[in-house]
This record gives sequence, C-alpha cells and structure tokens, in this order.
Amino acid sequence: MPSSSVSSAFTEFELVDVRFPTSLELDGSDAMNPDPDYSAAYVVLHTSGGESGFGFVFTIGRGNEVAVAAIRAVERLVTGLDVDSTLADLGGLWRRLVHDSQLRWLGPEKGVVHMAIGAVVNAIWDLRARREGKPLWRLLGDLSPHELVDLIDFRHLTDVLTREEALDILTAAAEGKQQRIDALLADGYPAYTTSAGWLGYSDDKVTRLVGEALRDGFTHLKLKVGADIVDDERRVALVRRLVGPDVVLSVDANQAWEVDEAIENVRRLTPYGIRWIEEPTSPDDVLGHRRIAEAVAPVLVASGEHVANRVMFKQLLASGAIDVCQIDACRVAGVNENLAILVLAAKFGVPVCPHAGGVGLCEVVQHLAMFDYVAVSGSTDGRWLEFVDHLHEHFVEPVRVSGGRYAAPVLPGSSAQVHQETLRTNRYPEGEVWAAR
Amino acid sequence: MPSSSVSSAFTEFELVDVRFPTSLELDGSDAMNPDPDYSAAYVVLHTSGGESGFGFVFTIGRGNEVAVAAIRAVERLVTGLDVDSTLADLGGLWRRLVHDSQLRWLGPEKGVVHMAIGAVVNAIWDLRARREGKPLWRLLGDLSPHELVDLIDFRHLTDVLTREEALDILTAAAEGKQQRIDALLADGYPAYTTSAGWLGYSDDKVTRLVGEALRDGFTHLKLKVGADIVDDERRVALVRRLVGPDVVLSVDANQAWEVDEAIENVRRLTPYGIRWIEEPTSPDDVLGHRRIAEAVAPVLVASGEHVANRVMFKQLLASGAIDVCQIDACRVAGVNENLAILVLAAKFGVPVCPHAGGVGLCEVVQHLAMFDYVAVSGSTDGRWLEFVDHLHEHFVEPVRVSGGRYAAPVLPGSSAQVHQETLRTNRYPEGEVWAAR
Repeated sequence: MPSSSVSSAFTEFELVDVRFPTSLELDGSDAMNPDPDYSAAYVVLHTSGGESGFGFVFTIGRGNEVAVAAIRAVERLVTGLDVDSTLADLGGLWRRLVHDSQLRWLGPEKGVVHMAIGAVVNAIWDLRARREGKPLWRLLGDLSPHELVDLIDFRHLTDVLTREEALDILTAAAEGKQQRIDALLADGYPAYTTSAGWLGYSDDKVTRLVGEALRDGFTHLKLKVGADIVDDERRVALVRRLVGPDVVLSVDANQAWEVDEAIENVRRLTPYGIRWIEEPTSPDDVLGHRRIAEAVAPVLVASGEHVANRVMFKQLLASGAIDVCQIDACRVAGVNENLAILVLAAKFGVPVCPHAGGVGLCEVVQHLAMFDYVAVSGSTDGRWLEFVDHLHEHFVEPVRVSGGRYAAPVLPGSSAQVHQETLRTNRYPEGEVWAAR
Repeated sequence: MPSSSVSSAFTEFELVDVRFPTSLELDGSDAMNPDPDYSAAYVVLHTSGGESGFGFVFTIGRGNEVAVAAIRAVERLVTGLDVDSTLADLGGLWRRLVHDSQLRWLGPEKGVVHMAIGAVVNAIWDLRARREGKPLWRLLGDLSPHELVDLIDFRHLTDVLTREEALDILTAAAEGKQQRIDALLADGYPAYTTSAGWLGYSDDKVTRLVGEALRDGFTHLKLKVGADIVDDERRVALVRRLVGPDVVLSVDANQAWEVDEAIENVRRLTPYGIRWIEEPTSPDDVLGHRRIAEAVAPVLVASGEHVANRVMFKQLLASGAIDVCQIDACRVAGVNENLAILVLAAKFGVPVCPHAGGVGLCEVVQHLAMFDYVAVSGSTDGRWLEFVDHLHEHFVEPVRVSGGRYAAPVLPGSSAQVHQETLRTNRYPEGEVWAAR
C-alpha cells in the first residue's frame, strides 16, 4: 500500500448529528417504523497528515444522539494511532475495537456500540480507499485472498467457517475477477426498488409509483406488508395486476408477525407470486425463521438489516433459516464484519441482496454488493441491490441508478461523504431544517 | 394499589455516572474481562408528588457514559406521564418504551438502549414497591396470575409461550405461595460464591478464599476458566482437592471458547466434578450452545448474563441449548422482561440461577430469584443465586448473606438505592476517587 512519506496519526473526530424530517411524507413508513426521521450519526476522521475519512451510523431519529455518544466512546481507542500501521492491519484494528475489554459489555457485539464501531471502521476504510485512489469496491476487489482473510475475525465462527475454508472460497472466487470488474463497469449491478410500496402511501400513489418504476426499467419491486393482512393481500393483488406476471415481487413485513402468523400470512400472499418474504418476525429468532422457511418454500425467507452480528448470520445461514442474506452497511461493525458475512453466505450458496434506503445506505452498501460479485460469490444470479429513491442529493457521490441497475461508483472512497451544506442545514437540533420546528 | 390523593407526574431524571476502580485489584477478572471498573449509569426518578425510584445500567467502565446518554433518550418518553396510571399499567409502559418507533432501530431490543429501558423500568418498579411499602419480591409475589401476565409482552414469543399457557403456569404456581413466603423469610435463599475463583488471583489467594467460603457456609463455588486450559485444569483440580467431593463446583468460561473447543475443554474438566459450564461460547449462539449441551451432558450448560432479550431466551430454553437460566437484572428491559423469561424457564423446567456480582446486581436480582421461588417455579431445587462479595457497602440496603444463603430483603423497594456519599465520591470523572488519578 502506498504510504505518506511522513508518519501521521488520527486526530480528534468530527461528529455531526444530522437528521431529515422524513416522517412528514411517510417516506419509509412500514409496519414497525410508522414515522421515521432518517438520521445519521456522522463521523469525519482526520489525520495529522491532512487526510479525511467519512462514515456514519444510520438511525431513524430519536436516539441518534446516543449513537453520537457511542462513536465518541470509540474515538478514545483510535485517536493517536499511527495511520500507516493502522491501515496496514485493519483486521487487527477491528479486533481491538470490538473486543475492547470494557466497551464489549455494552453489547457484546450488538446494538449502538457495535454500530458505532462500524461507523468508525467504515470511515477508516473510506480514508484508505481515498489514499489508494480507488472506490471501496475496487480496493476490496484488488486485495488477495490472503489479505481478505486477515481482515476477518473468525472468533465464534470456526464451528461453521474456518480461516482455511474462507481462504479456499476466496481463492476459488478470484478466478475471472477481471472479467467481472469489466462487466460491472460496463453494465452495473441489478437493483430492485422499494420506493413504490411504503405502507403509508395511498393506492393512487402506489399505482403511479409502480408505473414509474416499470418505466425506469425495474423488474423487481418490493412492497411493505404487516399492518393488516386483508389490506396486504389487496395491495399485493393490486400491484401484481399492475405489473403483470413477469416482474418479480417481494414483500417485507418488518418483523411484524409471530412465527405461526407469518406462515399463515405468507401462504395467503403466495398465489400472487412472491419471491421473498423479508423480516417475517423478530430478527433474533433463528429457530423461528427456520420454521418459516421450511413452511413457506418455495417463497424465500430474507433477513439481515437488523441482524446484529456475524454469529447471528452464521446460525441463520448454516441452519437454512434464511434464503436471502440482506447485509446492511451500518448495522454490524463495518466492512470487516460484512466481509465475514459475505464469505459465510458464499459457503452456503445464499445470495446476498443488501438492505439499503434510509440515508446513505445505498451509497455505502453498493460497494459491498459489487465486491461480493467481483471477488466472493462471483455471481449476480438471484441478486439485487435495494434501491430507495430519496436523500441521495445530500451526498458528494450519489448513487447512479438507471435501467434498473446501479452504476459502479468511480470516485475514491466509500461514497459516504455528505455535503457540507447538508451538515449545516440538517444538524440536529440547531440546523435551519429543525430550528424552524 | 394505593394511590396518592393528588395526581402527580414524573419529572426530570437525575442521572449519575458512577464508577469503581476495581481493575486495580483484579476483582472480577475473567477470560473476556481482564480489567473491569465496575460502573453504573444510575438513574433516580422523581415525581411532582415527591416520590423517588432508583435503578441503573451496570457496565464495566468505558462506555458507561453511553448508557447515561441512552437513559436520557428514554427520559423523554417518561417525563410528564401521570404516575398513578403509569403504575397501574406497567405492561403498557414497557411496550411503549421498548417498541418506540424510532428508538427501537438502535437495537432492536438489545444493547445499550434496551439496557437503558431496563434501568428506567426497574426504577419505576422500585418506586411502586416503595409506594406500596413492600420489597419488590413481595410486591411481585402478591400480584395475581392475571396481573402478572398483563406485565408480559408476548410479542415474538407465542410460538413457544402464549398468554394462556403463562396464565396456567402462574395459576398452578400460586398454590402454596404463603408457605414459600414464610420459608423464605425464615431460611432465605441458597447462594453460591464466585469470590474465590477470579482468574487474576494467585493460587495462594484462591486457597485462602476457598477456605473462607467453606467456613462461611457455601456449598457451591464457581471458578473462572477460559484463558488457558492447562492452567484451568490445574486450578479446578486444586479447588476440588481443597473442597472435597461433596461441594458443588461450577466453571465459567465467559464466552472465551469456540464451540468445538468448548466441548473438548469441558470434557477435560469433567473428571473433577463440574455442575455447570457457564458461557462456554458467544451468548448469541443458540445452535452452538445446543451442540455443546448435547456433547457435555451430564455437565449442564448455563448462560444468560449477556443474552439480549426474551426472544433469545425463548430459543435457548425451547431448544435445550441451556440447562441453567442465568437471568440478569440489568441486561434485558427490566422486571417485565425478566418475568417473561422466568415463565419460559418454568415451562421448560430449567432452573433459574441468576447472574449477580458487579455493583448492585446481587441487590436487585435477589428480588427476582425470590419471586421465582414464591410464585413461578415454586422450588429452590438446583437453584442458587450468585454471590460476589464486593461493593455492597455502597447500597442503602445491602444484601445479607450468611450460612451460604441470602436473607430476604425487608425494606420497601428493589434495594437499588446507592448512598449519596458514594454518588459524590465515585462520580466519574469528577468524584474524588477519580479526580486523584
């Protein structure tokens, strides 16, 4: 890795509590989240050498300040570290942060502190990608299988995935990498859209948005369900009539159901042609998801956006509890942990269809989906990256989606950087967007 | 329930970050927590009627300020609520706090925010017990089975435990309640001690402390293992020689092992006569615990102090992954969620042996163990409440343990109140204990 000629160190973090009043429009409304105000606990890392890295915890409003406090707690473990040696061993850094002997009590490896570590880890990756002049997906794709396994913490995974197995999987996947990079740059990565199907929208609005989605080239749409099954069935039937038989439809219950209720409700929706049921019940319920998956096949069970860590993913994947693995860029402890999850998914042949939306989740997670295609699963079959069309304008490198596909990002970094103007206007509670309320 | 004549409301919370420099003595050192500074994010609820309630999140140092920030986030959902109607429906309050549509993103139902809700819920129970003039265990024991099930949120539990089943379990358990209350007041509740077996202690210190524990009447001791199996075996053998064949010995690996490593290591320790192996691996690994439990029987598998919520306990209990259920007063969302877990344990006939120690955990959790005996499991067979002998002097009603048994608390409340003097001296970082460092 190129390094700066003079050694530099991480200095004080810049933290911003930035929030968007999305609840006013019911954008993002679902069975468990009726009124989200999409927010980010946003961190800018600085170094004494003048470099920067950007990352964030995504939240939906209240409690965003707790995530800011958690990043502040992580800051003490990073400030003063030498930048070159830190970037040269990001696996070691991950272990030091996640297994900090006192902080780990607050999880362990889950919840706000784990997400805060994720924001910091992602920001360091952003900085490294900027330094190397590559978009994150490309930086990861250019690493060797040995370099990649060094980034993974195999603690509490080895009954299902050892370092040697991971190395074998990644070594096999390296074949044909250059062709896939070329294909990605030429054609992009397949997307599906959730923008048409929020629970709070009227039928007229859904009809209009479904038409727009089809015209925009999407061939896979997702609808929110879970508030009332009679209404869910009516809406799914409406959308199936609108799109015809060939468009892929998935549904998302956002954890609203009990295990048996999920089985019953999915069976009611199955006649309309459903690819996957997402978050049918509690994200912690491995055994419940397995029962649902067995009962509703061939409808697939999808989960992941609220799955706390790699140990939970290990169980969900190894036991056949999920058929679609929905990694999230900001739930687990950053790039390193998502790398572990991608390799686990590859081992069990489960397609990765990342969760996105919110604010900035599309921007960051696209890098991981593209890296998965280039260097882990080697495939886009049965894989789509979620697309939700709001708040992209706040990012320096917003996603580019057209013809139902994400274009590969080209700027150095992880696309996480937010415009200065947005940080000013949406800073909570002082920014003008909030001060007026 | 008696209510004050004039209606009152919850006012601003008083929050204190209080820490104890326990890492200096290696008290509490184990395989994952080599240097804990036992700490509490301590909350005092006040009402406009002049009443108070006390609760806390327990942590082991760094990050205690994040727990304080999380309690502050919960405060906004409580301040201004009418006290009488809140106390009359603590099941409803629990649901409003835990399922807050924005805060839940930060878990969901796990980590710092969940623990913060637990502190607030426990403090409200403390206030209610004070108002009713009863220790918490007695207040809970005096509730009817119908009142108790109203306190439980059955969401995401009903595939394993329905409201009707819980009602049946509690109704059956109500028989003989008065005799058990009398027995508890006369004889107390059985304890085991962890004080002799911390990893950081020398063999001489362990030998001395084991002798003291036997003289103090303990018949069940627990040792920390997990750093090095050769050393573990030597220490377990030493203690077995010291205590003879009749004293119960358990060991605690504090999550240090992989699944297969746990099986192998427990088999090495089995010849010395081990009752349970505690936290053999990640607390999130339901399937891993089940494999270990099947492989090491008749040694029992114990876990719970880091189990995030009732959905995780549901799986651990229903699948036979744990044989000993170690509830913690301050990990899940307070009294209500622990009540759900006690009923789940009763359904599967799994004994509850609570986790305690730290600071204040013995004080609060004794109420739940005693309530379990009085009104849920109806038994003390195979049940012991953990005892660790430090930091009790900081509490207004410290635990009273003699002859290897906890005496039932008698003062109104949950025994969570810390002396004002301690709040002054140990406030972090301003208190004199810390300012000098």
